[in-house]
Amino acid sequence: MYKNLKLISGSVHRELAKSISEKMNIPLTPIRLKKFRDGEIYIKIEESMRGEDVFIIQPTCTPVNDSLMELLIIIDAVRRASAGRINAVIPYFGYARQDRKASSREPITSKLIANILTTAGVNRVVTVDLHADQIQGFFDIPMDHFQGYIMFYDYFKNKNIKNLVAVSPDAGAVKKTRRFAKALNIPLVIIDKRRPEHNEAEILNVIGDVKGKNAIIIDDIIDTGGTIVNAASVLKLKGAKEVYICATHGVLSDGAAEKLKKSVAKEIILTDTIPIPEKKRFRKLKIISIAPLMAEIINRIHHNESLGQLFDLDGCVI
Amino acid sequence: MYKNLKLISGSVHRELAKSISEKMNIPLTPIRLKKFRDGEIYIKIEESMRGEDVFIIQPTCTPVNDSLMELLIIIDAVRRASAGRINAVIPYFGYARQDRKASSREPITSKLIANILTTAGVNRVVTVDLHADQIQGFFDIPMDHFQGYIMFYDYFKNKNIKNLVAVSPDAGAVKKTRRFAKALNIPLVIIDKRRPEHNEAEILNVIGDVKGKNAIIIDDIIDTGGTIVNAASVLKLKGAKEVYICATHGVLSDGAAEKLKKSVAKEIILTDTIPIPEKKRFRKLKIISIAPLMAEIINRIHHNESLGQLFDLDGCVI
Amino acid sequence: MYKNLKLISGSVHRELAKSISEKMNIPLTPIRLKKFRDGEIYIKIEESMRGEDVFIIQPTCTPVNDSLMELLIIIDAVRRASAGRINAVIPYFGYARQDRKASSREPITSKLIANILTTAGVNRVVTVDLHADQIQGFFDIPMDHFQGYIMFYDYFKNKNIKNLVAVSPDAGAVKKTRRFAKALNIPLVIIDKRRPEHNEAEILNVIGDVKGKNAIIIDDIIDTGGTIVNAASVLKLKGAKEVYICATHGVLSDGAAEKLKKSVAKEIILTDTIPIPEKKRFRKLKIISIAPLMAEIINRIHHNESLGQLFDLDGCVI
Amino acid sequence: MYKNLKLISGSVHRELAKSISEKMNIPLTPIRLKKFRDGEIYIKIEESMRGEDVFIIQPTCTPVNDSLMELLIIIDAVRRASAGRINAVIPYFGYARQDRKASSREPITSKLIANILTTAGVNRVVTVDLHADQIQGFFDIPMDHFQGYIMFYDYFKNKNIKNLVAVSPDAGAVKKTRRFAKALNIPLVIIDKRRPEHNEAEILNVIGDVKGKNAIIIDDIIDTGGTIVNAASVLKLKGAKEVYICATHGVLSDGAAEKLKKSVAKEIILTDTIPIPEKKRFRKLKIISIAPLMAEIINRIHHNESLGQLFDLDGCVI
Amino acid sequence: MYKNLKLISGSVHRELAKSISEKMNIPLTPIRLKKFRDGEIYIKIEESMRGEDVFIIQPTCTPVNDSLMELLIIIDAVRRASAGRINAVIPYFGYARQDRKASSREPITSKLIANILTTAGVNRVVTVDLHADQIQGFFDIPMDHFQGYIMFYDYFKNKNIKNLVAVSPDAGAVKKTRRFAKALNIPLVIIDKRRPEHNEAEILNVIGDVKGKNAIIIDDIIDTGGTIVNAASVLKLKGAKEVYICATHGVLSDGAAEKLKKSVAKEIILTDTIPIPEKKRFRKLKIISIAPLMAEIINRIHHNESLGQLFDLDGCVI
Amino acid sequence: MYKNLKLISGSVHRELAKSISEKMNIPLTPIRLKKFRDGEIYIKIEESMRGEDVFIIQPTCTPVNDSLMELLIIIDAVRRASAGRINAVIPYFGYARQDRKASSREPITSKLIANILTTAGVNRVVTVDLHADQIQGFFDIPMDHFQGYIMFYDYFKNKNIKNLVAVSPDAGAVKKTRRFAKALNIPLVIIDKRRPEHNEAEILNVIGDVKGKNAIIIDDIIDTGGTIVNAASVLKLKGAKEVYICATHGVLSDGAAEKLKKSVAKEIILTDTIPIPEKKRFRKLKIISIAPLMAEIINRIHHNESLGQLFDLDGCVI
Repeated sequence: MYKNLKLISGSVHRELAKSISEKMNIPLTPIRLKKFRDGEIYIKIEESMRGEDVFIIQPTCTPVNDSLMELLIIIDAVRRASAGRINAVIPYFGYARQDRKASSREPITSKLIANILTTAGVNRVVTVDLHADQIQGFFDIPMDHFQGYIMFYDYFKNKNIKNLVAVSPDAGAVKKTRRFAKALNIPLVIIDKRRPEHNEAEILNVIGDVKGKNAIIIDDIIDTGGTIVNAASVLKLKGAKEVYICATHGVLSDGAAEKLKKSVAKEIILTDTIPIPEKKRFRKLKIISIAPLMAEIINRIHHNESLGQLFDLDGCVI
Repeated sequence: MYKNLKLISGSVHRELAKSISEKMNIPLTPIRLKKFRDGEIYIKIEESMRGEDVFIIQPTCTPVNDSLMELLIIIDAVRRASAGRINAVIPYFGYARQDRKASSREPITSKLIANILTTAGVNRVVTVDLHADQIQGFFDIPMDHFQGYIMFYDYFKNKNIKNLVAVSPDAGAVKKTRRFAKALNIPLVIIDKRRPEHNEAEILNVIGDVKGKNAIIIDDIIDTGGTIVNAASVLKLKGAKEVYICATHGVLSDGAAEKLKKSVAKEIILTDTIPIPEKKRFRKLKIISIAPLMAEIINRIHHNESLGQLFDLDGCVI
Repeated sequence: MYKNLKLISGSVHRELAKSISEKMNIPLTPIRLKKFRDGEIYIKIEESMRGEDVFIIQPTCTPVNDSLMELLIIIDAVRRASAGRINAVIPYFGYARQDRKASSREPITSKLIANILTTAGVNRVVTVDLHADQIQGFFDIPMDHFQGYIMFYDYFKNKNIKNLVAVSPDAGAVKKTRRFAKALNIPLVIIDKRRPEHNEAEILNVIGDVKGKNAIIIDDIIDTGGTIVNAASVLKLKGAKEVYICATHGVLSDGAAEKLKKSVAKEIILTDTIPIPEKKRFRKLKIISIAPLMAEIINRIHHNESLGQLFDLDGCVI
Repeated sequence: MYKNLKLISGSVHRELAKSISEKMNIPLTPIRLKKFRDGEIYIKIEESMRGEDVFIIQPTCTPVNDSLMELLIIIDAVRRASAGRINAVIPYFGYARQDRKASSREPITSKLIANILTTAGVNRVVTVDLHADQIQGFFDIPMDHFQGYIMFYDYFKNKNIKNLVAVSPDAGAVKKTRRFAKALNIPLVIIDKRRPEHNEAEILNVIGDVKGKNAIIIDDIIDTGGTIVNAASVLKLKGAKEVYICATHGVLSDGAAEKLKKSVAKEIILTDTIPIPEKKRFRKLKIISIAPLMAEIINRIHHNESLGQLFDLDGCVI
Repeated sequence: MYKNLKLISGSVHRELAKSISEKMNIPLTPIRLKKFRDGEIYIKIEESMRGEDVFIIQPTCTPVNDSLMELLIIIDAVRRASAGRINAVIPYFGYARQDRKASSREPITSKLIANILTTAGVNRVVTVDLHADQIQGFFDIPMDHFQGYIMFYDYFKNKNIKNLVAVSPDAGAVKKTRRFAKALNIPLVIIDKRRPEHNEAEILNVIGDVKGKNAIIIDDIIDTGGTIVNAASVLKLKGAKEVYICATHGVLSDGAAEKLKKSVAKEIILTDTIPIPEKKRFRKLKIISIAPLMAEIINRIHHNESLGQLFDLDGCVI
Repeated sequence: MYKNLKLISGSVHRELAKSISEKMNIPLTPIRLKKFRDGEIYIKIEESMRGEDVFIIQPTCTPVNDSLMELLIIIDAVRRASAGRINAVIPYFGYARQDRKASSREPITSKLIANILTTAGVNRVVTVDLHADQIQGFFDIPMDHFQGYIMFYDYFKNKNIKNLVAVSPDAGAVKKTRRFAKALNIPLVIIDKRRPEHNEAEILNVIGDVKGKNAIIIDDIIDTGGTIVNAASVLKLKGAKEVYICATHGVLSDGAAEKLKKSVAKEIILTDTIPIPEKKRFRKLKIISIAPLMAEIINRIHHNESLGQLFDLDGCVI
């Protein structure tokens, strides 16, 4: 069925790679991955790459610089080994939030990453729920990308809860939240964090009505969890019945899991674009796996089949 | 004062170029600009370009493809004529709204434009209020960019109207509106356009409170004017006292000027990033010129002086 | 017969694209082509492009900048949609006459076009009768190109007229005319336009003998038609029997059709590399279609068959 | 007067480099140039290049591959030594005649040369009388180029001979000859070499009238000399009074000098873009040096002064 | 004295940067350097970079991937801030040992690093004692590089010890050791590590005579220290009087300092290309600072003065 | 068996190309190769290249600049003729010894060659025994490379001589010699050429023991032969029994063959990476052909089969 398709996993998320490998019924290509004592990464691919259609699975999550360099080095090895086509499957694209200059003399690190991936020799990037859709345009190679909200759409469709509202936890997530709200045909609410006077504390203004509603907060990333947990609290305060928190990428920096666990939210729903270790898991955390969808996407890319037809929702894969 | 600085105007907005030229006290470099009968553009720069720091002023507005090609051809001529540095001053960056794939098999035309400008040989781009900040990252050359809202900030600061709210006419403009709202320290309101059921007409939901408030709608572009004029009406309906419409770029496609003139808005405030012909002007339209600011920016770029120190507001030039 | 070949037509010359499509028995790929009110072009390809060998048919004729930008945007969309190979079929290559700096500080717009086509992502260009053969070298991607005179060769071979001479209407067309003259083994005549003294009118010197001969004027482009119609008149004056005018590309700017119609020429023979609208057609205008030849060329490119063997005449496809 | 200008001569034409150096009153930068026993070239620049405006003088004439490689290697050394700007002064651009595909599966070697010069790191090319003007467009870096005929224009202006005609020795040189004819305001004559029937010998048709005229044959290159010497003979046969032969580049392959010496031409006028050894010189050969003009051009490039103003004739430097 | 020179230190080796800054009497440019909770690096340059000649000091040592990414991000910020020239001063070039494919399907990570530094926008690299000289050729931008042995040459010249031999601890270091041996005019000895039979332990063969000699082992890097400490022991065993260990780069991975301290060597001499923390220092460890030399090199680069004249020894800076 | 594989031979080593062609049972593609009188090379490929996997066989040996330019021009022609993949088989890579800057203001000509080959359009390089392994990293395209010593390994394995030592004739060849020594499990000896005092003659120090041993000197290149012939003599002087000289590339500049013939060596063993004309051959010279191995390598590259499995010895093909 697959004549010359190779799946390679970096060291970051072998669990996801294995799930994909199992769904596709293709073994992971053996690869020697070593860190020298001084921290330098050594790579050796253990099978011929000549003419192969190679998919390298590696989210560039924490430790982000190591993850990224490992990915680049694998790409270099695969390219020099005469691969036919090199596809980087990067479920979580690190540094995506540094996608513009917000003040003078800042870098645009996302673009830097896009450029160095291209320089290293990648021919295609497959990724999930970029912080801004415009990051697609940071690449000139083909990019296959799907919005994270489609993972949550099915989940809530099946749950069949009444009186839902979709809540954007800040101005930045409005577009993403609106897509989800539109798909479920539910109202949109926005939280605007603002410092009323120069020396006062920030307060959260809830723009829109949540009284007696079941609120679903939608974001792409949960990092320290502060913003989103506060958002949940303020929604409750404003009379929301239940609060659900959804985010595609569970970065979950130090203390985030604890905060979420203790939050007023009824459920926290993440995907597995980033590995979530056992110690960060808790009862009300649900993890939806992207592996079945990713396996199908890789399958279609390899066979030159359309991805656009893969989803019911308009425009979810682009 | 300026040893080797040259200002060149394309054919699109000579009025703005002249204003800048007068502010800087530098004549525009003469240039022969001709359209052949078959529509091909011919260019000849009439003064030596050797080693000069050249600023080419051309918004890529309607007729967008002609404006853009003319700019590219001027760049090619200037480059081959051994210019020292080529700066494209593009107050309005056409095709900026095509900045991502919204569905399968669409182009990302903004990125295409960025790439071909770079290929043509430009060394720097100066622009105003990009549709998305991320477009900065479409370039790898230095880009000087300022947010449009700073033009309106001073205007309303001086007007000293009470009870203001800033209104984003749709989900896409929330970030821009929020910056303005934050600068003036006024509340944020959002309009969410949605079709309640498949076959019903779209309705505008006003998220947030406008009753008895003076509403300022903020957007980057007014094109056909439909969305923003309807937004003004619905705000009035929801009890707003006065409605002001602000937009950086007055594209004003057919009929837009008429719609704005007839709208419920008390004032429409635009800048002159795009030429606004006499016939599209009307009594309640105010046009704030960017020429003084642009002249100062060109001056600082040429003398390697910081732009970051140019504004009171944080992060307005990046 | 064609496993993964796609034909796409831009908006410029659907008639030619349809003829090619019919000859090849392959439907044109549906594509959404829209111009927004402000003149920006929007494109969406309506069928999967993954791994396809795509041929985009678009002469870059009047309105040249729109035609070119549309082509670039289609290429961008096709590339981002993971096409296998992108071939631009550009029967008429606009701006080809701006192929060198004739005086200081001019652009070389043909090279600029070549560069931006390559930047956009095209892998091959197929074109007809470039203004100068050297434009081939403006590209580093493969280019398939055939001389226009072979279209006229067959025409006159069949007509079997006696006493023919081939006439170059100016110094620039001598090489092209000479190829035609050599193929038919007929004498060469050249017209040299010169202003005898600074303030006098230009006169046409006929270099070579046309008395009693049937003259065929050969050029690549008829634009305003002035030069070539005057050439026909002067030939008659010098005693030519009949005058035929041949040109590959019928640009036919304003008034050209009228001029040609009224000219002393017995026949005007063009090809359909550029669409010639009904209102520009007249009785003594013959249009030879390139569609059969282009269909065969596309067929051979797709199947990796030699083009060199396609023609009887030496060196006509290169 | 020259703060940071360096002149470097390759091994090919030190005589010209020395003349330029003397005119400019700048010593040639010492450079170690060595050929190893196996033919590999070794280079070492003997003075600091840091930040310098470096002009490397090297025509890429016979032995063309050695001349070119030496130039490339000097450029590489200069670039790695942190030069400020690298200008290649290539009075004769070898391989210029291979500027297009004349039949299938030929290279376009001129473009290859342009590409590898750019890759090696050159920032500007200065050259004389390219075989086709379009070769300018093979480069995207600035190129300063002047037509060869201006050297002959002054020569014949001063000679003040009556009844002149300018003769193009074949169809390829018509454009060059026409410029010269136009500048002197004299008639144009063209020679068309053709084989009347397949098995017959080629004959030369003189198109235009030379009877009793003094004919000046104009070409860019004299290589084997065959064509041009035959052209001179046929002109005499057709009644020309005196025949002068002018060519910018005296390639003078084996036997050419002898042929020219014995020819019917009264004078042969060349420039020194290529070194002409003593043994190839003869009484009726005149050599006009480009050194004064080249020195002035280098001077102006270095000081960012216009070259366009250097000449009386329109468009002679482009 | 320095008009537009800026020194920036990354977070890796501020001590060296400060020493250089003091020697040059130029303050370090303030820079905000932050690691987010998830490990992403954030950078903001706190002073204008426009037109500046910027030197960024950052060895890419442990943690190598963080050091490198930080350097790349600083470069990106500096480039987008319109710096005039960007010089990366990388005293220790991480991943230098991965400079070739030693077996199939390995990467060449050093080249990858060179490529991505160039992509990020660096204009020059300054570095010390590359593992292989050929790494210079991995870059096409100018590179200033000096051999580490010159640091030890002065040291031993002054010590004035008799009966010295220079020892290469393995086949890879022979060239470096030979340069040192030649400079001091002392004999060369080589240690060849080999496994006599397949299952036996590796043994060290000392090729050359060390009996009664004072041996100086020369290497570029001490990483785990195993090889070099064993080399010292075997030299003692073979009758060496005193053993000195010299290495340019003190990587000193876990346990290396301890091993060196306990070794038979009389002295271990390193430079400070890599920061050596207090806890890894011990009595018989000498550290020679490169700061004075580096300050002078930066000074000369900035002023376009020759580096070749900086050293007594031939070829030590290239 | 080979569907779309083409073998092309340049003019340099048709004998090797023919051997490979015979082993593979594929005819060489006819190609017109001409040198014009002035030394310019003309090429025309005589068969269609469309979509073909093309292997061009050309060592870039003496006359090195001609060999290289011819190769580049063939590549250009093949690329413009729409080849599918272009593989340059360069058994001897000229200029490989110029792989680093040994002193200021030298070029790195090997890198220049790598860059211009890539610019010309080559997709892969196949080569043998590069002077330094790091040259692999000068390319970013895939490179297949094998060490020369494996050719000699089999030879000596079969000869079964006792008491062997492997001798590196200078410090530069130690790594290569060590690989051979390790493969045969024999001791390593090194010769260090040094000038004892400034004005004295160079002397050769033999480091290691050769008394009564059969010595095999290993190097990659024999150019003038001086070093290696002197090495043989000194080994004899130090008591070696027999001396064998092995080198992969027989450059054999003027006089080298004579020197080798007269040397004390019992046998000189070369490969045929470079053509060795009859007049340079002598009785004790053995030439081992690389044709069988190269044929197998081309076969495997074409069929996307692993090269790593081709050899018994570790790491011999990389």
